Amino acid sequence: MIRIGVAGASGLAGGELIRLIMQHPELELTFLGGSRTVGRRLVDLHPGLRHDPGLVVEPVTPRLAERCDVMVLATPAEVSAALAPVLAERLPCLVDLSGAFRITCSDVHKRWYPSVDRPDGLVERFTYGVPELLGDELAEARLISLPGCYATAITLALAPLVLGSGLRVDSVLVDGKSGSSGGGLRPRTADLHPYRSGAITPYAPTGHRHAAEVGQFFARRRAGSIGSLAMSAYGVSNVRGLLASCYVQARGDQLDDRSLHRAYLRFYRQQPFVRVRRHAETLIPVPDPQAVLGSNFCDLAVMRDDEGDRVVVLAALDNLVKGAAGQAVQAINRRFGLPEECGLGMQPVVPA
Amino acid sequence: MIRIGVAGASGLAGGELIRLIMQHPELELTFLGGSRTVGRRLVDLHPGLRHDPGLVVEPVTPRLAERCDVMVLATPAEVSAALAPVLAERLPCLVDLSGAFRITCSDVHKRWYPSVDRPDGLVERFTYGVPELLGDELAEARLISLPGCYATAITLALAPLVLGSGLRVDSVLVDGKSGSSGGGLRPRTADLHPYRSGAITPYAPTGHRHAAEVGQFFARRRAGSIGSLAMSAYGVSNVRGLLASCYVQARGDQLDDRSLHRAYLRFYRQQPFVRVRRHAETLIPVPDPQAVLGSNFCDLAVMRDDEGDRVVVLAALDNLVKGAAGQAVQAINRRFGLPEECGLGMQPVVPA
Amino acid sequence: MIRIGVAGASGLAGGELIRLIMQHPELELTFLGGSRTVGRRLVDLHPGLRHDPGLVVEPVTPRLAERCDVMVLATPAEVSAALAPVLAERLPCLVDLSGAFRITCSDVHKRWYPSVDRPDGLVERFTYGVPELLGDELAEARLISLPGCYATAITLALAPLVLGSGLRVDSVLVDGKSGSSGGGLRPRTADLHPYRSGAITPYAPTGHRHAAEVGQFFARRRAGSIGSLAMSAYGVSNVRGLLASCYVQARGDQLDDRSLHRAYLRFYRQQPFVRVRRHAETLIPVPDPQAVLGSNFCDLAVMRDDEGDRVVVLAALDNLVKGAAGQAVQAINRRFGLPEECGLGMQPVVPA
Amino acid sequence: MIRIGVAGASGLAGGELIRLIMQHPELELTFLGGSRTVGRRLVDLHPGLRHDPGLVVEPVTPRLAERCDVMVLATPAEVSAALAPVLAERLPCLVDLSGAFRITCSDVHKRWYPSVDRPDGLVERFTYGVPELLGDELAEARLISLPGCYATAITLALAPLVLGSGLRVDSVLVDGKSGSSGGGLRPRTADLHPYRSGAITPYAPTGHRHAAEVGQFFARRRAGSIGSLAMSAYGVSNVRGLLASCYVQARGDQLDDRSLHRAYLRFYRQQPFVRVRRHAETLIPVPDPQAVLGSNFCDLAVMRDDEGDRVVVLAALDNLVKGAAGQAVQAINRRFGLPEECGLGMQPVVPA
Repeated sequence: MIRIGVAGASGLAGGELIRLIMQHPELELTFLGGSRTVGRRLVDLHPGLRHDPGLVVEPVTPRLAERCDVMVLATPAEVSAALAPVLAERLPCLVDLSGAFRITCSDVHKRWYPSVDRPDGLVERFTYGVPELLGDELAEARLISLPGCYATAITLALAPLVLGSGLRVDSVLVDGKSGSSGGGLRPRTADLHPYRSGAITPYAPTGHRHAAEVGQFFARRRAGSIGSLAMSAYGVSNVRGLLASCYVQARGDQLDDRSLHRAYLRFYRQQPFVRVRRHAETLIPVPDPQAVLGSNFCDLAVMRDDEGDRVVVLAALDNLVKGAAGQAVQAINRRFGLPEECGLGMQPVVPA
Repeated sequence: MIRIGVAGASGLAGGELIRLIMQHPELELTFLGGSRTVGRRLVDLHPGLRHDPGLVVEPVTPRLAERCDVMVLATPAEVSAALAPVLAERLPCLVDLSGAFRITCSDVHKRWYPSVDRPDGLVERFTYGVPELLGDELAEARLISLPGCYATAITLALAPLVLGSGLRVDSVLVDGKSGSSGGGLRPRTADLHPYRSGAITPYAPTGHRHAAEVGQFFARRRAGSIGSLAMSAYGVSNVRGLLASCYVQARGDQLDDRSLHRAYLRFYRQQPFVRVRRHAETLIPVPDPQAVLGSNFCDLAVMRDDEGDRVVVLAALDNLVKGAAGQAVQAINRRFGLPEECGLGMQPVVPA
Repeated sequence: MIRIGVAGASGLAGGELIRLIMQHPELELTFLGGSRTVGRRLVDLHPGLRHDPGLVVEPVTPRLAERCDVMVLATPAEVSAALAPVLAERLPCLVDLSGAFRITCSDVHKRWYPSVDRPDGLVERFTYGVPELLGDELAEARLISLPGCYATAITLALAPLVLGSGLRVDSVLVDGKSGSSGGGLRPRTADLHPYRSGAITPYAPTGHRHAAEVGQFFARRRAGSIGSLAMSAYGVSNVRGLLASCYVQARGDQLDDRSLHRAYLRFYRQQPFVRVRRHAETLIPVPDPQAVLGSNFCDLAVMRDDEGDRVVVLAALDNLVKGAAGQAVQAINRRFGLPEECGLGMQPVVPA
Repeated sequence: MIRIGVAGASGLAGGELIRLIMQHPELELTFLGGSRTVGRRLVDLHPGLRHDPGLVVEPVTPRLAERCDVMVLATPAEVSAALAPVLAERLPCLVDLSGAFRITCSDVHKRWYPSVDRPDGLVERFTYGVPELLGDELAEARLISLPGCYATAITLALAPLVLGSGLRVDSVLVDGKSGSSGGGLRPRTADLHPYRSGAITPYAPTGHRHAAEVGQFFARRRAGSIGSLAMSAYGVSNVRGLLASCYVQARGDQLDDRSLHRAYLRFYRQQPFVRVRRHAETLIPVPDPQAVLGSNFCDLAVMRDDEGDRVVVLAALDNLVKGAAGQAVQAINRRFGLPEECGLGMQPVVPA
């Protein structure tokens, strides 16, 4: 059994990670880390999880390294930036779910995370990326920084176009729609049920920090690969789930529906968690985040739209699973040589 | 009192129209038209409305003209296309809420409404458009075709750029998000509560017929005004409301936030139902359709996004009010010389 | 014009009151009172309301009496208890929406409102009750305390049985279901959207303070009229609306469906805001709070259930309208000699 | 591997069963049965499930018995009543999720299921009940009829009082609140999203057929054990989940909170799927169906309410899991000698 600790155990991503660990045959939860919730029991924090009387929240100290083979930071970026230097040398594997170590370039990092100070030299040691696109890199990784929920969806949506074809992608416009769980549990008036329940809220109409990650990721893989990448983000009434609508201006052959669909199928042939779907293949249109709820799937569909001469790529995932906790388990499976789907076989809960 | 009849009285737009007529000091409801619901009482059809024992659904026949000064067709486009020729000569004013008489060009009409046959020569006699942009045209109009809910939002969103500035609009991409009431009461599995409740559903990812109206409208006002107009449409968990996100590539001076906001304020200065808002002026981000629920307002905000070199215009409205029944009352007010806000002073029901 | 001020202008009930005042032909809003929001404009506080640049939140001081003919306290009970003594002598009419002056008996008051201290002798001067059951009392009232949202629904549900018949009501069990707006805008984790959205939450399973009001009200009218009154309250995913299910053990003749329905019709014949309905009279079962949303209606239905030998009375209302702001306007209309429906003619927004 | 077939594969309970079978290590799905959906693939019917190209809907014929060790009828009661006689002799195990074989007494059956004709003599051969209360009966059962979703909750809620204590239960009043998935996928207007979304709908205010099952179950265990059992049922905006509020008049000692809680803990000590909880033990009040979503748990809490001299028992479960498909798997595990939790270890998806 691989011993795993969770810092930020009281948050939504932390709770989801604990859920997945409880369902995983090779992971043993040995540490719950927190600050304001120190001393609280698991049952106090997460109303649904099976009670485990032995688990109580503790402060995160270097000592916990003795009890863990891997630690996941499900903490705000500020906290991750403070904890990572302390833990990096002491643990065989450290996984950060926050934005603290995603963006390498200091200037870009500062623009999007102005309050997150990182020690020099640490970010370069992190392996960053969606597991599907990292090949064997994770097998040796000691420090892992996982993409944001939107970045995961957008990267998976664009990769076959940018990396897998002879196309030239001139510009991408992403319109993101997501549920309230992405915002965590901060008690702001706009996030209280009365105002969030019926909202279609333009919370980031001119730019989102996850777009910066995506640009960096592709720029490193193949320079200049995306001419421009703009993003607008909206909150809708769902709790979980996001849909990233990617509107792509591309040049090249084989931009018809059929060729695009085939190219996507081919690109993700080996990937158990990416489902390339046809828009009308089921009784509801897909991709729709409700069709992946609670699972580690990312559903994709690609289409040609003659109006505007564009390619439409849709990506849906559960932001707390494939966008956070599930992707962490997937990365840990790869890191520790387990089958990639180990403990992640849960099917979507549909309808919910 | 102006005597008004409603055809399609059992539908959602019909019900909303009856609500507004009941609240209007100068309109008297004298006819409820339907086909499958003939003989039903108002209380059978609309659970919320004040009971009126005298109102029973009747078939729509030429005779009803004796009882009405104005008739609103809140019927499917196929039905409107069949009723309009019969009623056009007999009534002082006929208002159609469907798509039957919106698109003048036959080829374009057939592409988007293949099952809607219109008699020759009728569509040209309809006055089409958002009241705010029609000037005095409605005062004399005998046949009025009102824009679709999305077309209303998009037209209002783009008009200051296309008509009111020295800008050149090269291309527009619209990402629309709307509630379930836009789809009416057809009993499809995907529209049953279990599947529609948690959905972010890409129901029209590559084109929407309302976009065709918008293109036609601006083309007639100033030829070639919009280079291209593409649209994708999504359903979310709301019942009412839509948000149209318009991403605009434009050229010209004064494309900064402040100039754009001022230009919009100026353009709509005289219009009581269009509110030009700042994105962060209230405790929730606006425009958000929840902030106009039940009212005839259309909320707009315009912003510059340096990423992608674009202008973002957001438009929110209640599809059953400003997108249908409220706009009909507004047009009727103009047509019959009443103050434009007469009977439309209801404030949004927020939060709901 | 009657000049009206609103204390607690930033809350949900305050906002709803401002909405209704804006729609009212005889009320002029002359004062917005608050504490933490002093200096904020109306548009900052309530995202939907028509902007009025002249209205800014001010502290509540005795001076405001010069600007108001009537003041409504839409404040927490603690605040109402502090403000009422200051304002009581200075204003022609003061209306309190909180629980501060509902319960006359000090011991009962202290049990349910332990943190609300009232000066001696003030509560007795308040007129308390649902307007429908107060006859002419409101016409002379200087101090008015309106029932809680649940108390309004339960009182209206039970009055025909308790007051209007020869029945003997042995016991009543109320199961209440309500939306999140009843809880106001306190930032508690359980009220954040992620947890409140899918909840059926037993927030008060063994008792609710509104039940105490109801018991007191009937006890005063006809001693011993209800043997016992128990209540359990649950939160559901709605924002607005409540349904009070009253399960009544009663003895007497005429306990069949038809007699009960007729007795209710008779009892409320003159009341424009109480609708006695048949359960299956419309396309959805009623009473359902969605069928009164945004309006001042209270829908009732009464039925005999042979199992358990009981009478079932259902009452649905919009807690922010008939349960708070609308009822306040209704009381003010009565107080100032306006028609009871003045400014309250808005029909329900259905579906929403 | 145990070969399992599902009749009614296109419904909500059928889909949920397939989900659980896919997650179960000892069950192999070998047959999908249907009528109107014959020839459809799994991916056509259930938008979330992992695609399995080999599975196509077939008509249910006696022949399928060769391919199945156990068959689950997730069909309407009329269909189950027709299929069961055909299949009963041919399969080692037949499990019915419908109401066709729940009620033994013909008169009671006919009252609640007037359109469901059963052959003589068959219902007596079915083993009926919640697995937790059946002891070893399931190990030998060839024909199994599982309780309705509400009946499961109410039976588990009342069993410790009725069966496990020296109390006398005079009367029970159940107020049930449930999501829309309980109603299946019938296309009725009231179940379309616009009307169901904001509803608190009294769909069965004076009686529910699940109450009849509960009464029968306890009557057989200990005659006269419940004096009377009445029920009212309401639909709320959730898709999944139900909360049964049981208001109990009981006589005896040890009716205080602490004694009751202990008695419940003791009664269910050995039962992995029943969680006896304290109302305020977590950050949201429990039991709340959102805290068991997607899992096979039933959460219970018991409390004394001095008002009305009653005991309040709350039971929450996911109607598609513990109320249908999960309970079926649990029964099959018991029937085939597998550990009761085999394949049912999924933790609730919270919040969702």
